[in-house]
Amino acid sequence: MDIAPVRDYFTGLQDRIVGELEGIEGAPFLRDAWDRPRGGQQDKLPPVPSPTTGVAKPVGSGGAEQCSANSPLHPRDEGDTGSLRSGLNAATASGRPSGGGISRLIEDGKVFERGGVNFSHVMGEQMPASATAHRPELAGRRWQAMGVSLVMHPRNPYCPTSHMNVRFFVAEKEGEDAVWWFGGGMDLTPYYGFEQDARHFHQACKDALAPFGPEVHPRYKQWCDDYFFLKHRNEARGIGGIFFDDLNQQGFERCFALMQSVGNHFTAAYLPIIERRCEIPYGERERDFQAYRRGRYVEFNLVWDRGTLFGLQSGGRTESILMSLPPIVKWRYDWRPEPGSDEARLYTDFLPRREWV
Amino acid sequence: MDIAPVRDYFTGLQDRIVGELEGIEGAPFLRDAWDRPRGGQQDKLPPVPSPTTGVAKPVGSGGAEQCSANSPLHPRDEGDTGSLRSGLNAATASGRPSGGGISRLIEDGKVFERGGVNFSHVMGEQMPASATAHRPELAGRRWQAMGVSLVMHPRNPYCPTSHMNVRFFVAEKEGEDAVWWFGGGMDLTPYYGFEQDARHFHQACKDALAPFGPEVHPRYKQWCDDYFFLKHRNEARGIGGIFFDDLNQQGFERCFALMQSVGNHFTAAYLPIIERRCEIPYGERERDFQAYRRGRYVEFNLVWDRGTLFGLQSGGRTESILMSLPPIVKWRYDWRPEPGSDEARLYTDFLPRREWV
Repeated sequence: MDIAPVRDYFTGLQDRIVGELEGIEGAPFLRDAWDRPRGGQQDKLPPVPSPTTGVAKPVGSGGAEQCSANSPLHPRDEGDTGSLRSGLNAATASGRPSGGGISRLIEDGKVFERGGVNFSHVMGEQMPASATAHRPELAGRRWQAMGVSLVMHPRNPYCPTSHMNVRFFVAEKEGEDAVWWFGGGMDLTPYYGFEQDARHFHQACKDALAPFGPEVHPRYKQWCDDYFFLKHRNEARGIGGIFFDDLNQQGFERCFALMQSVGNHFTAAYLPIIERRCEIPYGERERDFQAYRRGRYVEFNLVWDRGTLFGLQSGGRTESILMSLPPIVKWRYDWRPEPGSDEARLYTDFLPRREWV
Repeated sequence: MDIAPVRDYFTGLQDRIVGELEGIEGAPFLRDAWDRPRGGQQDKLPPVPSPTTGVAKPVGSGGAEQCSANSPLHPRDEGDTGSLRSGLNAATASGRPSGGGISRLIEDGKVFERGGVNFSHVMGEQMPASATAHRPELAGRRWQAMGVSLVMHPRNPYCPTSHMNVRFFVAEKEGEDAVWWFGGGMDLTPYYGFEQDARHFHQACKDALAPFGPEVHPRYKQWCDDYFFLKHRNEARGIGGIFFDDLNQQGFERCFALMQSVGNHFTAAYLPIIERRCEIPYGERERDFQAYRRGRYVEFNLVWDRGTLFGLQSGGRTESILMSLPPIVKWRYDWRPEPGSDEARLYTDFLPRREWV
């Protein structure tokens, strides 16, 4: 299977998104390429600021970053982190995948306090048995997974955090058809909600999927609401967006096009919100609430997110995976917002599942 | 089986430890009792400051907090968080356990920036099948788990974070012998290491176990080093201490006594260190390093700690479980200490496994 077009799409998307983010930030992102040869130790190049027009160079094959939010090797049974974790141990036991990636990141920026746009491409000689329990046709196949994963934590508490991910997986075997699928999505996590922003973001998500049939958006919106949910808080991570996985129906071209449309709509979905909110004055109260709510982001990513868990437990590149964590986070015992306050409105008006468009 | 003496020990230990901590803090801890009746919703009383001499009142039976660090229902295969997570889903499926607990906590204190001493006592009508896969003799038994769990995050970066836990589990069935075991331990997580402190803490751990035979301490020290390890960083959480589980050999009285000795030695192990270091002047640099290192604490507790995971995924009381998380935490990309600096000494001289006594 010729995966070059998919890889080219991913590296190009990373460049375009980083270019637009740098435009808003007014400063370059760092560029950190890494490479892990087969069976070898990770060989990382030191991070250097890139020119804003810099083109990410594909790195040599060989690494093990995970393209969060979802693992290419994840078990098919949604929500069963139990079997996931079993799989992880088996994956580790059967050796680290090789591969490489490019992390583009910013810290302590004027607009973005911390964030990264990661590209990674990892591969293995043989699917771990644990990952193929539900898909026996994958057993023993060589595999590749690649994708772009992004999380941005703005400084201004009136700007929402955003996450986007697009990914591709393929498992091959001589003389047989390749098994492949796409996944991806984007979602928004506000601290102080704005109905205008929520509608705008969800409309862009809907626009991205419109060419693929009217039934697609409602399904992927629901999937997103279901996935980004903190069961131990009985609370959504944010206001959702879209999420999909295992996409391989109606042909490769359509699936590839759908995933591209999701990736291509991200900046239109997110950046107008940043531009609209990033100059709103704020004080200690808002920063405090932002830091407190960021704790929920950490809890979701470390306790529930399958991509993060898979990455960390299978020997992925920790620093790339944990680029998703916020810069400053606070925990406080049993804190609740004052009823009727702006902070309370997040809980009452934004986090509960809603149809925004 | 008469578990009243064990319960009395736990509630008494919680009171004694909180009393000593309050003495150092110079202020009372909050007291938050909670209760979850069988099949019911959690019914929480509002937190109120307690007199420093206050005696914790046992709450009515009935809740589901977890006595971290370890689950009473954990699988026996060390380190397999995979099968743990499977177990959790099964545990949840078979209904939340009932029970109650008392959280004693402090936030924003002069000495302790955040910390809690939790007692909990939870029970279920029937062991979930997943928890009994390796112990078929437990299948279908009614069970109880109780314990005291403590994490203290001091404000001064020269003071180490500490964790202590003692716990008891019993599964019973009419006409058959009860199956029971004890577990526990304590460990230290410094930001800036002091050899004197490390030796003192480990000596107290050794003293706690000395009456039970010379072979016990080395084994429990090793167990602690193995358990509190961040595999995704290839780094110890701290300088260790002691850890044990599944303790049921040589009779109930000896096992109960051993666990008591561990609980009883905690304040002598930890508080002299706090007293010695809590007045050392520090600045932004030290606070920053402390916040960065606290991120490792969060990563361990949310990604690897079986007690935390079990609690969160089985419907435990989230706010009690997450009392273990630090008040302010920072993440920074691929940060490394300057070679030879005080910060670097933590990595070179303290985190690598050592024999301290």
